[in-house]
Amino acid sequence: MIAARRSRQLHLNAFLKPPGEFLAAWRHPNAVPDAGVNIRHLIELARTAERAHFDALFFADLVGVPFADQEVLRRVSVVNDSFEPTTLLAALSTATTRIGLIATASTTYNEPYHLARTFASLDHLSRGRAGWNLVTSLNDAEARNFGLAEHVEHEERYRRAAEFHEVVTGLWDSFDDDAFRYDQTSGIYFDDDKLHRLDHRGRYFSVTGPLNIPRSPQGRPVVVQAGSSETGRSLAAAVADVVFTQHPDAAAARAFYVDIKARAAAAGRDPDHVVVLPALSTIVGRTLTEAEDKADRLYALLDPRVALADLAYWLGGVDLSAYPLDGPLPQLPLSNQSRSAQRLIVERARARNLTIRELARGLARDDRTIVSTPEGVADHIQEWFETQAADGFNVIFPYLPETLDDFANLVIPHLQRRGLFRTSYQGRTLRENLGLPRPASRYARGRAGA
Amino acid sequence: MIAARRSRQLHLNAFLKPPGEFLAAWRHPNAVPDAGVNIRHLIELARTAERAHFDALFFADLVGVPFADQEVLRRVSVVNDSFEPTTLLAALSTATTRIGLIATASTTYNEPYHLARTFASLDHLSRGRAGWNLVTSLNDAEARNFGLAEHVEHEERYRRAAEFHEVVTGLWDSFDDDAFRYDQTSGIYFDDDKLHRLDHRGRYFSVTGPLNIPRSPQGRPVVVQAGSSETGRSLAAAVADVVFTQHPDAAAARAFYVDIKARAAAAGRDPDHVVVLPALSTIVGRTLTEAEDKADRLYALLDPRVALADLAYWLGGVDLSAYPLDGPLPQLPLSNQSRSAQRLIVERARARNLTIRELARGLARDDRTIVSTPEGVADHIQEWFETQAADGFNVIFPYLPETLDDFANLVIPHLQRRGLFRTSYQGRTLRENLGLPRPASRYARGRAGA
Repeated sequence: MIAARRSRQLHLNAFLKPPGEFLAAWRHPNAVPDAGVNIRHLIELARTAERAHFDALFFADLVGVPFADQEVLRRVSVVNDSFEPTTLLAALSTATTRIGLIATASTTYNEPYHLARTFASLDHLSRGRAGWNLVTSLNDAEARNFGLAEHVEHEERYRRAAEFHEVVTGLWDSFDDDAFRYDQTSGIYFDDDKLHRLDHRGRYFSVTGPLNIPRSPQGRPVVVQAGSSETGRSLAAAVADVVFTQHPDAAAARAFYVDIKARAAAAGRDPDHVVVLPALSTIVGRTLTEAEDKADRLYALLDPRVALADLAYWLGGVDLSAYPLDGPLPQLPLSNQSRSAQRLIVERARARNLTIRELARGLARDDRTIVSTPEGVADHIQEWFETQAADGFNVIFPYLPETLDDFANLVIPHLQRRGLFRTSYQGRTLRENLGLPRPASRYARGRAGA
Repeated sequence: MIAARRSRQLHLNAFLKPPGEFLAAWRHPNAVPDAGVNIRHLIELARTAERAHFDALFFADLVGVPFADQEVLRRVSVVNDSFEPTTLLAALSTATTRIGLIATASTTYNEPYHLARTFASLDHLSRGRAGWNLVTSLNDAEARNFGLAEHVEHEERYRRAAEFHEVVTGLWDSFDDDAFRYDQTSGIYFDDDKLHRLDHRGRYFSVTGPLNIPRSPQGRPVVVQAGSSETGRSLAAAVADVVFTQHPDAAAARAFYVDIKARAAAAGRDPDHVVVLPALSTIVGRTLTEAEDKADRLYALLDPRVALADLAYWLGGVDLSAYPLDGPLPQLPLSNQSRSAQRLIVERARARNLTIRELARGLARDDRTIVSTPEGVADHIQEWFETQAADGFNVIFPYLPETLDDFANLVIPHLQRRGLFRTSYQGRTLRENLGLPRPASRYARGRAGA
């Protein structure tokens, strides 16, 4: 075990999926059922997270409604009925002052010019708090909203994502940081030798540029990436400032952590500048009994049909009805959607020898959810952090607002007392709070590009 | 002349292009030079417009930097360095409560699914205050950011725009207004027979849908359109809630007004539900001398090279250097960019027998700018409104914040005393304030679609 260096800081993102990550969260008596489009409620959640000094808010995204069984679909909320994340975070930028704002956006179904501009705009609006969670999208339902019959093939998506990222970061550097002189006397608004045309001609994109917005406060918004496949890890090591990941246990997390840091170093990057944040889902009570009661009341709200359909969805839209519910998960081909999600599920089934029914229930409950006391959760965080399984966590909230309130009010004070977590924001930008340097422009003279 | 009906309401949009519409506005001593990316300043402007009860804020857009002569480009600000409009308006949605929020977005370089979602999201965020200014984009600099060598041909752009609009409005109707039950007891989140898949297969787009957001507070965000060509007018009469237009004089405005209302009626629409708003640019002083002094001080800030380059730009990127500055505008072919802008300029040159130099100076100054007293501006507004040259105006501000402050503090009180303009917001949504009905969903049973 490597001893934690004194300078390491614990980082926490609030992964918000109102009314909660659990599929039946909206049925909880304290839930706000229309949370996905209720801006007053979201401002409350954002301010709670900011008072608790989370590094950032983090919103997932899909560009379609997965058309599973309608009988099931009508019983769930998950991302089918919520604000578009970049407009949501822009709205939250004027209702908050210090917390980071990370939105998910797809490289498979966007144009790099629009995406570069949207996130640069969000970084200006928030005065340096924007982050982009780069995803390659999930499924056929999304493809069919963009003129395609089926989802783009996995390796092809990643090739496109790498070029997309190259174009986006190039566009972010269009104007040098000191390009704008605003010299009212001479009439020179900006120095034209500090404006750069990209002239990108690649396999997937042809983009002349420049981007029509000044370089943003962070230079470049923070880039988050979550791929766990071989291709996904390579991309993360090459381009990600933050890696969002999920693991069945601490040993797997440590192996991933070592691997990503080594890959980053091999790519010529400082491993400390790739912040690894596994998922952490918690239900906290003042006593263990209280925590378990909360979990039991929540889980009782879930219709078993929904759990089964959710499992089939994450396995890539397979039909599980042909297999006995109390039998093992059959051998299934990897589909074209997120392979890391599929692999995690299959590994879990094998490792624990679960039936389909048990697997579905466990997935819905996120059976890695820690149901514990504040001390118990703090112990888990400290152990993973100090043994380098994590630089911090993407904290997932099974139901809102309660599990966020509990984390903020009960867990974070423990982390602060142990000296693990900040008691005030040290930085003004998200990069500063994450301990990341401000990247130099690719056009910066006499300096290495970042 | 048709007598004004009692029920007609004057409508005013604040067309904001910080630091001002005039090319040298940023050099004005009271200007905020970095206004394009200064959110605090923009919140101030938005709140001034809201206190004055403007119907809406209105932001133009380009998806590129027109690469004119660098010598010229570096002396101007115009849309090269500002927030992306939908994220900007999302940010302003939480800093305002009643004013409408209209953003420009291109049908030529966007995907309808993204655009439908972004504006539905903005309508939810603002609780019913969103508007989309549908444009087909302007020039080659934009095309080259999206993999094309040159701007899409004019008629082709409009065919695509019509289909794009059809897809967007269809997606906005994906969920019926009463689809979401949020019934915690039964576990039914929404009624699945109130969710509609679009299944659009057209010439330009193939979009399955549904859109992953509930139908928005206005049913559909307000659609603004500004085409003045034959094709542009047809599209406006068919689909626009608000028509933004520009005319050399009241007679031309009246002819356009009558034409658009007749076209709307012919298309089976209520002509009152197409709100015609010509541009109105003003510089106001308490006395005529004060107004003229303000204008002179502003115009003195403009470098003549910038004025000439701007003329060449609006004529579609022509090279005017081959022609004598003090000679007439030569016969030039219509380029592929906005034809109505080109026609307006050519008509102005012919009507007034202007030289190239005079035309350039007049265009930069917007020589239809009314330099007058508050009474003089109010007289103009009243005459155009009562003689049905206009249902109101898109008010353009030569330099900010001063011409907005002057309009709000000096002109609007006159309009209110004359009973022409509201003293408080009557409606909660932009549609209500514009006197427009809430459109029925295309899937509404037993009712005509809107």
